[in-house]
Amino acid sequence: MSQTEPEEGSLLLEESAEKLLAPPSVSEFPIFNQEAAYDDFTTIDWFRDLNQERNRQRILARKKRQNYFGWIRKILGDAWQGWLVTFLVGITVGGVSGFVDFLVQWLNDLKFGVCCTAFWLNKANCDSWKSWTELISVNSNFLAFIFYAFWMLLFSVLSGVLVVFFAPFSAGSGISEVKTILSGFVIRRFLNFNTLIVKIIGTCLSVSAGLSLGKEGPFVHIASCLGNVFSIIFEKYRCNEAKKRELLSAAAASGVSVAFGAPIGGVLFSLEEVSYYFPHKTMWRSFFCALTAASVLKYLDPARTGCLVNLSVDYTTPWHVCEIPAFFLIGLLGGVYGSLFVKANVWWNRYRATCFIRRYPIREILVIASLTAVCKYPIHLLRMNTTDSLKLLLSKCTSSSTLLDCNEEYFKAACVLIISVAFTLILTALTFGIQVPAGIFIPSMSAGAMMGRLVGIFFQWLRRNSATLTRIFPCKNNSYCINPGLYALCGAAAGLGGVTRMSVSLAVILFELTGGLTYIIPIMITIVTSKWIGDACGTSGIYDEHIRLKGYPFLDSKCEYSSTTTAREILHPQHNEPPLCVLLEKGNTVGSLKRLLKESPYKGFPLIDNLESRGSLGFVNRIDLTTAIEKISESTEVSEATSVCFTLKDWKTYNLCINLAHINTIPIQVSEEMPLDMIVDLFRKLGVRYLLVVTHGELIGLITKKDLLKHLASVYRQDPELILYY
Amino acid sequence: MSQTEPEEGSLLLEESAEKLLAPPSVSEFPIFNQEAAYDDFTTIDWFRDLNQERNRQRILARKKRQNYFGWIRKILGDAWQGWLVTFLVGITVGGVSGFVDFLVQWLNDLKFGVCCTAFWLNKANCDSWKSWTELISVNSNFLAFIFYAFWMLLFSVLSGVLVVFFAPFSAGSGISEVKTILSGFVIRRFLNFNTLIVKIIGTCLSVSAGLSLGKEGPFVHIASCLGNVFSIIFEKYRCNEAKKRELLSAAAASGVSVAFGAPIGGVLFSLEEVSYYFPHKTMWRSFFCALTAASVLKYLDPARTGCLVNLSVDYTTPWHVCEIPAFFLIGLLGGVYGSLFVKANVWWNRYRATCFIRRYPIREILVIASLTAVCKYPIHLLRMNTTDSLKLLLSKCTSSSTLLDCNEEYFKAACVLIISVAFTLILTALTFGIQVPAGIFIPSMSAGAMMGRLVGIFFQWLRRNSATLTRIFPCKNNSYCINPGLYALCGAAAGLGGVTRMSVSLAVILFELTGGLTYIIPIMITIVTSKWIGDACGTSGIYDEHIRLKGYPFLDSKCEYSSTTTAREILHPQHNEPPLCVLLEKGNTVGSLKRLLKESPYKGFPLIDNLESRGSLGFVNRIDLTTAIEKISESTEVSEATSVCFTLKDWKTYNLCINLAHINTIPIQVSEEMPLDMIVDLFRKLGVRYLLVVTHGELIGLITKKDLLKHLASVYRQDPELILYY
Repeated sequence: MSQTEPEEGSLLLEESAEKLLAPPSVSEFPIFNQEAAYDDFTTIDWFRDLNQERNRQRILARKKRQNYFGWIRKILGDAWQGWLVTFLVGITVGGVSGFVDFLVQWLNDLKFGVCCTAFWLNKANCDSWKSWTELISVNSNFLAFIFYAFWMLLFSVLSGVLVVFFAPFSAGSGISEVKTILSGFVIRRFLNFNTLIVKIIGTCLSVSAGLSLGKEGPFVHIASCLGNVFSIIFEKYRCNEAKKRELLSAAAASGVSVAFGAPIGGVLFSLEEVSYYFPHKTMWRSFFCALTAASVLKYLDPARTGCLVNLSVDYTTPWHVCEIPAFFLIGLLGGVYGSLFVKANVWWNRYRATCFIRRYPIREILVIASLTAVCKYPIHLLRMNTTDSLKLLLSKCTSSSTLLDCNEEYFKAACVLIISVAFTLILTALTFGIQVPAGIFIPSMSAGAMMGRLVGIFFQWLRRNSATLTRIFPCKNNSYCINPGLYALCGAAAGLGGVTRMSVSLAVILFELTGGLTYIIPIMITIVTSKWIGDACGTSGIYDEHIRLKGYPFLDSKCEYSSTTTAREILHPQHNEPPLCVLLEKGNTVGSLKRLLKESPYKGFPLIDNLESRGSLGFVNRIDLTTAIEKISESTEVSEATSVCFTLKDWKTYNLCINLAHINTIPIQVSEEMPLDMIVDLFRKLGVRYLLVVTHGELIGLITKKDLLKHLASVYRQDPELILYY
Repeated sequence: MSQTEPEEGSLLLEESAEKLLAPPSVSEFPIFNQEAAYDDFTTIDWFRDLNQERNRQRILARKKRQNYFGWIRKILGDAWQGWLVTFLVGITVGGVSGFVDFLVQWLNDLKFGVCCTAFWLNKANCDSWKSWTELISVNSNFLAFIFYAFWMLLFSVLSGVLVVFFAPFSAGSGISEVKTILSGFVIRRFLNFNTLIVKIIGTCLSVSAGLSLGKEGPFVHIASCLGNVFSIIFEKYRCNEAKKRELLSAAAASGVSVAFGAPIGGVLFSLEEVSYYFPHKTMWRSFFCALTAASVLKYLDPARTGCLVNLSVDYTTPWHVCEIPAFFLIGLLGGVYGSLFVKANVWWNRYRATCFIRRYPIREILVIASLTAVCKYPIHLLRMNTTDSLKLLLSKCTSSSTLLDCNEEYFKAACVLIISVAFTLILTALTFGIQVPAGIFIPSMSAGAMMGRLVGIFFQWLRRNSATLTRIFPCKNNSYCINPGLYALCGAAAGLGGVTRMSVSLAVILFELTGGLTYIIPIMITIVTSKWIGDACGTSGIYDEHIRLKGYPFLDSKCEYSSTTTAREILHPQHNEPPLCVLLEKGNTVGSLKRLLKESPYKGFPLIDNLESRGSLGFVNRIDLTTAIEKISESTEVSEATSVCFTLKDWKTYNLCINLAHINTIPIQVSEEMPLDMIVDLFRKLGVRYLLVVTHGELIGLITKKDLLKHLASVYRQDPELILYY
């Protein structure tokens, strides 16, 4: 306890008290202009921040009434700030995406050759294009492989060097971190300008290297960085972490929007997978942001196709009810693949973190890139650009098709596909975690599409060799009747669904990506099956597993908890712990508060009326108290002995002390009998950072998010130490 | 206050107390098996119901551990109950939808003629089809009109008679009511079997009558009815209003899924527009339910097209960046139309409720049906089935096209379209509110498509007469270069967007309905514009306006409140009101509680420790207390003088009285300084029905949902009396 009785003879500060007691204007309000309000790697208090924003709105509204200038400022500055910044983010995300698409194309072409007259042109725009083997006039398969491997290693290592030495946070997909940040966690350097630049260049390099990864995940991170960078311009977002997260949600939507050419899918991805707090207003902002980004990309048109749909399927023939078992089978394979991948990847990442490898990130990249080159080069389907190979897999059989199964070489085709799936699984599991920007959308879809095509081959073979099947499933053209492209499309859904456990957003992304609206039911069947199988195998989505792996304090909004513990067992202090550090309503001095801040490590202090009745009056956040005390101490009239009180009631009778009532947030109080799941609900749905526990009207303790996460970890995972931050 | 001191010599009931104190099993738990737990037209307490469900789960889990039978029961009975009932609802919704589609087709054909050999066949399946004028061998245009009007009046009146005399709740679209119910309101007869049957038949009749309405809204109601009917079979859903609402959300999704052939759009509609509480699990259930319903419909294939997409557009030509102003214009028109429609419809419904018309519902239907016949018959576009006319509007111009604008009769086409829009606006505004099942999706889309086509005509005309436009927008075939079908598609989005203010779900429904994925950006532009314009005109979506009109207690999850009031001004009792009716922890008898229930009208009673310190201990719901007292009184050992207590602490020391601690719910306590918007957040996000207000540890009052709604109404609408129920 750090309370002292008001010292006698303390300076009466009526003027300054009056000033602080009057409703503060924007510039005077001490909570504003706190760019470093939250420490790095801590959790924000949504409830506090949203309330702060409402206060600001109210003050603005009052200003609006006061003068004409305030009104104009409101129109131009505030109401439209949200839409303006969303628009700017959308435009930039679209622009960056066009740049990345162009650069990836150019780097990808560079792996195979160069434009002799103008090296900056890519293959499609150059008349004098020469491959490397042509340039040195040696026609050798081995030499071609050497060139292929050389560029792959060079690009990978370059990307790794950038990441390791300039912005370590730009490694991986970044979706787990974006998810954690949106749930209310602060990781300062994760979204800064450095990370943005390195992530953009690094993504281009690692994607065009041909490693087993995609650019979709990193794009969500890039877009979020852009959102964060733009938020600095606008005070409304800069000074309020909760408001900033609304902008970041919209930015994440635009990232998926341009990565897949799927604006609606982007909004839904942000809603379903990434965002935590998604009010209706944010849905509209995300919609608008995704629309703007997609429009810019469509205008830039880096692929020169004139439309957003990247992997459009060229068939619309209806599917047959008899094929439903095949879709279930594909879903099953996707679920199994997803679980295997998640387990393998998590195991490998956990192992890597403890062994010598983590000290040599660049050498690790070298080894994995070499392994990728050796595995991928011999197989035509893997050697090519991942997007092209996915396009090939999704295509239907025509007479000119180069795919083996279209030429009825079923056994050979099946062998190649099985090997390819195995390679993709192993390489992706190894790659997702090394120090380069890496997404897993495209590799997962690829592996899924291969498995889908495999099932397609199996069913074609079955139909040919079974009289019954031929009867119930008659076709005019015997060989192309079962469309293996459709099976690959479902497979792509199943693979990605198994790995990420997305539902509606996945279906919408697939439609927007491929245009295969006729196959809505097959795709939905495979998504539902792969989710069931994946859950039955006991894994969560890869992003949740990575959040757990990295020890971020994430209160999963999808989990349901059924423990029988109550607030009494979670609260702090328990019997063996030191007593609660509280503030009294009256009787504090500037000196006593400074001492309190210095001596106690807590993030905030409950405010009570007196030590006997312990009636709860509120909660004072450490950051607010620090700012307020600093502000007060600036005045020369204030000494260490000046009285400070926090009373909300009848402030006029207390004007002998400086009243800091305005930094008193109004916490929620719960009974000690409140069950765990209700407490979790309060934290999840309201985004509070602490609850006061009272019984018989007395404050008996505090539940912070940290306490809750520790408790949940001890109940469900038996190791609370795995959560590293709070 | 109804507390009495424990009477001396009260019967000691140790045995029975022990029994009630021990953790109750399912059958003993008095909260279960309360089918009529909530009164009709009252709000449920989500927080209480979800907690009750968790208790049930825990007891089941304990049973599972106890015996093998319990384990089997859990596997078969509980974990899969949710999926099973969702599956059943999906199948039935699909089946009903197939039936309705067939019946509507048959009734629609009946308006024009009959199958002479077998009257039950519709036109497409009959070789000896004869129109009515052919049958009576008179070829007169006027007679054809008479027949047209006759059937229209007959069907409308039949539909009206069914609704008025058998199930008044089946009138209108029902989406407003479903929305209110899902937000936690109880309207018993709204989802019962009677309403279901009348709604199905009534929808068939009113749709085939040719009134200005659609079947999509009613389908959401029909599906919700089916969800409710199936919930009766499963105890888990029957006895828990909160759990039932999860099922209803999924059912609503399946309703849209079959109405539009848009399973994903259905899930999003349920998420965005209808549902209030939509956890991740419900998203999966809705996905599954929508999928099942769509699969069944696809299998039944009532339209014999072999695919779900009803209004598929037959063009994929890319759009031009120059056309963007046109899309903005369409969005603007859609927003204006939407606002006009909402204002006109609300005004008319409010007027109708106060004047003589409401006493003659059948005559009103007669008048409106006649008016519809007179307005619609002369115009080819309106005379035909609404879906067919929408299809025609969305089509591109070909050489065989019958549309006026395709034959370059721009002026005539524009006139027809303007008149059609005006008629649709007026007729729909009049129709939506009469006593027949009526949806507004299709009429709104129709009107929007007409306006879109109008803009298309205008731009075609402009392009032809402006050299600049011809230069920047060159076309090979001069007349069909601007595709008016695309404009109509955007118009449909704008019209529906203006009326309902849907965002993502609207875009997805349109893609699934038309397959026009290439036009994602134009459609998104029009949706955003129409929403902005609609909001700027000061109206909300039609469903929200109707909820307000009908006085339902709906706490809008989209609104943001910026009032500066605090809990102190909202709580009950205020200074001039009678004191709060509370329960004491100890000292009650069976008799005193019975008297309390008899004498006070309140829905629940806060529990405090004693009248001096007023420390809050919990809250006892009236319905729980009534059930518990009834249950206790069944025992012969219990007299009026038996002591009853509610203590949660150390129950062993209190076993001289019957302890009803288990019916004590654990309410949330807030400070009297809590601002309004935070209180609204607590009610909205947690679904609580009341908050306890404490200050200095003393209970000073209670905020119920009713108090909050009244306060909000007084702050924002100046008329709290317009909210009829709580």
